[in-house]
Amino acid sequence: MAYELFYWPGIQGRGEFVRLALEEAGADYVDVARKPRGMDALMALLEGEQIARPPFAPPFLKDGDALIGQTAAILFYLGPRLRLAPRDEAARLWVHQIQLTIADAVGEAHDVHHPISGGLYYEDQKPEALRAAKVFREERIPKFLAWFEAILARNPKGDRHLVGARTTYADLSLFQLIDGLAYAFPHGMKAALKKAPLAAALHAAVAERPRIRAYLASDRRIPFNESGIFRHYPELDG
Amino acid sequence: MAYELFYWPGIQGRGEFVRLALEEAGADYVDVARKPRGMDALMALLEGEQIARPPFAPPFLKDGDALIGQTAAILFYLGPRLRLAPRDEAARLWVHQIQLTIADAVGEAHDVHHPISGGLYYEDQKPEALRAAKVFREERIPKFLAWFEAILARNPKGDRHLVGARTTYADLSLFQLIDGLAYAFPHGMKAALKKAPLAAALHAAVAERPRIRAYLASDRRIPFNESGIFRHYPELDG
Repeated sequence: MAYELFYWPGIQGRGEFVRLALEEAGADYVDVARKPRGMDALMALLEGEQIARPPFAPPFLKDGDALIGQTAAILFYLGPRLRLAPRDEAARLWVHQIQLTIADAVGEAHDVHHPISGGLYYEDQKPEALRAAKVFREERIPKFLAWFEAILARNPKGDRHLVGARTTYADLSLFQLIDGLAYAFPHGMKAALKKAPLAAALHAAVAERPRIRAYLASDRRIPFNESGIFRHYPELDG
Repeated sequence: MAYELFYWPGIQGRGEFVRLALEEAGADYVDVARKPRGMDALMALLEGEQIARPPFAPPFLKDGDALIGQTAAILFYLGPRLRLAPRDEAARLWVHQIQLTIADAVGEAHDVHHPISGGLYYEDQKPEALRAAKVFREERIPKFLAWFEAILARNPKGDRHLVGARTTYADLSLFQLIDGLAYAFPHGMKAALKKAPLAAALHAAVAERPRIRAYLASDRRIPFNESGIFRHYPELDG
């Protein structure tokens, strides 16, 4: 039975981290909300009063009777099933820990253009966003990249993967984080990635994996846009 | 061998979610950074170039050879070991999913007083914090509480616990979230909790659990203060 992914149509958003894992694995899945009447199905699970374990927000995944929300929890569930996580328990938790740190970076990247609230428009918080972007570009991006660089360099199985000698969902998620930041802050990221050559190489290598390459060229990959998490507002790029 | 918890001394912060689990279980643990030269030990693990799997930030836990960062990952690891998580895999992931949602709420609560950046002082972002606090109080607190209320009401084993019929670390974490929000926004939370009686009852019940009660009365419980995540700035309470 196909996995069912539920996420807002029209943006990559947090759903993209799950899509990349499903695509890399060649898994059978339906991107429900992009199908006819899919939004009704999404809202029924999100707001239905009979749902015993309702997700707080999209993305969420349905796998038969299992209904799982929170991007990192979805990937923790999918990891072994898609062969995108190590078998060893400690290594699996390490992959998850990296994923949670990527999630923190993603949240901060979002909050740069929505520092006051996700419930207000960007245009209503532009001066605040300008201030937030400066700190994010100058302090936070380098700090996150330095950590990824360090753990790539220290991976005893080689610096081509974050964990072990095979691709995990954390590699795919780091690709997406870097891809999104490079879209949002082309100027700032060009400089930042010079100091993070291993992370830059991982990003390039993931983009060339056959299934990911085919996916990125397909219409299943929603283009970056200014409704998503990673938004290109030139004034925020310094 | 005792668990070693590493967290900034002087604030409850994210370390408190781990402390509450260790305390409820009566586990043998050391709150390392609060001991003499503990900060040196913390920094050595955080910044040591020989650490194969370095945490990105405190809190982190050392259990023999295992070194685990990210609050939710630490609790996922500790859950079964402290008998604060169900045995069933799906239920354990559900507890984790709730924990991740609590973590999102905690992050938003922090960002209310630091909307522009965690790297600047509150005093440098007060007008922005006033705007952020209004949306947080009026929209976000009610939305999070409504979700906790719904999952308590729908727990087939009764509305005294978030998951199943026994206390999990998610119950302890929800206690801490509500405790912190009630400290930070006494006015706003009094109104909000009236619409979330099950969550309010859970908060009260956790505070009365014998080990938690003893812990809260001890000097191991750092008082809330204006350096932590939950800060009482009356101007932000509406």
